[in-house]
Amino acid sequence: MLLARTALPEAPAPARERALRLLDRRLGGSKVLSGREACDAYARDESEAIGRVPDAVVRAASADDLAVALAVARETGVPITPRGGGTGRTGGAVPLAGGIVLDTSSLGRIKEIDLREQLAVVEPGVVLAELQARVEEVGLFYPPDPSSLESCCLGGNVAENAGGPRAFKYGVTRDWVLGVEAFLVGGQRIHAGRRTRKGVTGYDVTGLLVGSEGTLAVLGDVTLRLAPKPPAVVTLLALFADVRRAACAVQEITGAGLIPRCLELLDDETLRAVRRAGNPIDERAGAMLLIELDGDPAACEADAERTGEACVAAAALDVLVAKDSAQRERLWAARRRMSPAVRSLTRFKLSEDVVVPRQRLVELLERNARTCERERVRTLTYGHAGDGNLHVNFLWDDDDELPRVSAAIEQLFRDTVALGGTLSGEHGIGVLKAPYLPIEQSPELIALQRDLKRVFDPEGLLNPGKIFPALGHGAC
Amino acid sequence: MLLARTALPEAPAPARERALRLLDRRLGGSKVLSGREACDAYARDESEAIGRVPDAVVRAASADDLAVALAVARETGVPITPRGGGTGRTGGAVPLAGGIVLDTSSLGRIKEIDLREQLAVVEPGVVLAELQARVEEVGLFYPPDPSSLESCCLGGNVAENAGGPRAFKYGVTRDWVLGVEAFLVGGQRIHAGRRTRKGVTGYDVTGLLVGSEGTLAVLGDVTLRLAPKPPAVVTLLALFADVRRAACAVQEITGAGLIPRCLELLDDETLRAVRRAGNPIDERAGAMLLIELDGDPAACEADAERTGEACVAAAALDVLVAKDSAQRERLWAARRRMSPAVRSLTRFKLSEDVVVPRQRLVELLERNARTCERERVRTLTYGHAGDGNLHVNFLWDDDDELPRVSAAIEQLFRDTVALGGTLSGEHGIGVLKAPYLPIEQSPELIALQRDLKRVFDPEGLLNPGKIFPALGHGAC
Repeated sequence: MLLARTALPEAPAPARERALRLLDRRLGGSKVLSGREACDAYARDESEAIGRVPDAVVRAASADDLAVALAVARETGVPITPRGGGTGRTGGAVPLAGGIVLDTSSLGRIKEIDLREQLAVVEPGVVLAELQARVEEVGLFYPPDPSSLESCCLGGNVAENAGGPRAFKYGVTRDWVLGVEAFLVGGQRIHAGRRTRKGVTGYDVTGLLVGSEGTLAVLGDVTLRLAPKPPAVVTLLALFADVRRAACAVQEITGAGLIPRCLELLDDETLRAVRRAGNPIDERAGAMLLIELDGDPAACEADAERTGEACVAAAALDVLVAKDSAQRERLWAARRRMSPAVRSLTRFKLSEDVVVPRQRLVELLERNARTCERERVRTLTYGHAGDGNLHVNFLWDDDDELPRVSAAIEQLFRDTVALGGTLSGEHGIGVLKAPYLPIEQSPELIALQRDLKRVFDPEGLLNPGKIFPALGHGAC
Repeated sequence: MLLARTALPEAPAPARERALRLLDRRLGGSKVLSGREACDAYARDESEAIGRVPDAVVRAASADDLAVALAVARETGVPITPRGGGTGRTGGAVPLAGGIVLDTSSLGRIKEIDLREQLAVVEPGVVLAELQARVEEVGLFYPPDPSSLESCCLGGNVAENAGGPRAFKYGVTRDWVLGVEAFLVGGQRIHAGRRTRKGVTGYDVTGLLVGSEGTLAVLGDVTLRLAPKPPAVVTLLALFADVRRAACAVQEITGAGLIPRCLELLDDETLRAVRRAGNPIDERAGAMLLIELDGDPAACEADAERTGEACVAAAALDVLVAKDSAQRERLWAARRRMSPAVRSLTRFKLSEDVVVPRQRLVELLERNARTCERERVRTLTYGHAGDGNLHVNFLWDDDDELPRVSAAIEQLFRDTVALGGTLSGEHGIGVLKAPYLPIEQSPELIALQRDLKRVFDPEGLLNPGKIFPALGHGAC
């Protein structure tokens, strides 16, 4: 099943040629890439999904360009796929049916940071880390922090409802979006949401667009809520003999009413990879928790104390505490080097992001270990333990391992749902998880969502093939 | 315009008679009220809206009863309006077209409180205050606190996306709903959302249902996120010469990075009413802020200190601080007596709940004062100043004042939108604000929402006449 659907039928050649002509005429040559070579890179994103090479890539230089491209798509019946930083993990920006890719990454202006209302208005191509740096300079804070923050764009963050380690305390992108400008297929512009903290006027169209993975509309300007920058941050690193004890510590911490902003878990295989990459982590450790608290300095310190005690109560081998940024950087080093360290282990790697109730973390890991042993698939896990959001990684070197990897992934999803969980905590469904949606959602709920999609995009031109399983595959 | 649309055409008599027969047959007589006398009270809720006396009231005793009533509605084409505690402020539970009222208030079981996952599963008829008391007993906390908390039901809270004073720190109901069971017209049951903290699988159908005012589906069980109960609460009461200075204090507080859980404002007319009700408030005061901080005890105390200083910097006449619950109760007394005190001033009262950016609070109040002076309408304002969410009240005694009250309300909405605000922070649109929706939202956005409604309810049988302005009125 894995990577099964990487291409959909293209629009007829005359329609695609006409689309190209219209785009050239209305936008001018400099904004429109065409030809296999120029467009080749746009067939992929940072996931394992591979789409078709698009016929044209529109590099939008203004909101009007978004409208023009979407108008041409409708006029010609050619599919169109929006793209931000291209950093998605489930193929959201991959044009499965070719056609037009609408690249919003040049729309990179931070239009407004309002100190008094604590909000920002950004174009969709603003890079997350840039926004974070800018708002922190003026004492504000934008919490969502997916690991791609140096290259991902806010438009993509909103489309995918991005999360990150700090989601445990601060929630995900949806919790920070007040309003959006959105462009529908055909080019019509709507404004949904508000600039105020509160607002219940009409349906939550903003919330519906957040996390819709570019299948309902293309995002223009986004209005984001900001928080005051926390005055203090304390980081703790705790080592445990195994994940069971680390999971116990997570329960001790949350059960004590503590709300760390991060509660990151690394399992034994992940620690081994990190050690191999040159980080000297205690050899007795089979699991690590990286914990971060923020807020009032004195409260932080007291909470760090209690957090350390909770770790010790769960038989931590060692607990390190960092209070200044240099010390904090050292503790985070292992976590930061983890991704390249894991990436270098094998030729291929797929990182899932299932979520289970916190108290089922260990059970899921044990089930997955059994599955992977049976299927002879290499696996390791890290993730946001506070949320129950685990990045279960599957590693392989040869294509002939794929059927076994596929079987292990499907079993992971079945176990996740059986334990009361969900397929995705922050990566979205995209194309890679679309076949598995019926494991979690009923045919009725899927049909309802397809109907909602039709309201926005009756011809199915916008980012086709995402979220929903292919019709006629018998899946739903 | 005010109260203009209080009734819609009924379904044909034979259809209504058939609906009654089917309900009796499938549910049994004890669950179905009929006849003008028995059903009369269900023509109204706690708002000023008046609907038709329904033909039948179904008092659901199980989730299956919800499905049966919704199936009968579809089979017979008779409109159906869900109802919880009937405490809404915009007529959400008022059956404008008569037909069936589906009373969910007997579905009052708290089915589960999960300490480890910090969540609760409740039936829609659970009274908010009961849930709050139950979760606080075990060290947890459910923050939303509309003033009707002693009688409103969770199903209605979710349908209306209820707020309350604590929303400034904790957000509104939507921020606490993880998942819902929902029944569509026809009786089909869907489960949307999740039990986990995080989850981005598919569209946010849960978020779309929250705040949809009973126009998309009828809610069954609701899964709510809970927080740890804050260990300490400190309350401050600050008096100011006028609202301008109180609003300054709000800016000073939020600008200092403080996040009180409540930041309540009472204006001069409100204080006068409270004084008349027997609360001896300093005669020099023309505005009051009631401020509440919670969290770590030491941090609370430090923040209370800084909050007090911010009030003094904004020329507070007096600042009182309460640390134990008896002291806190005394400070809240004025706020609690406010509603009946205001209610007793005139025969009729309409409380709006507009929201503006915080820094425009004073401007909105000044504009409203000018309008009300011109229209000779009595007005007073209190509300959640931290959110910019003001309950602007209009008071009158005689029906012949209505056109002037109407004009003042419409002007308030126009000013609110002109200042970057929104029509409703927590009461919803219902029937009372439906005519004004086009002041805030574009025809395109309204049309899109009508299309979304049709996905759920193609025949327009569920809670007709709510949210959207009547078609053909030329409004949109």
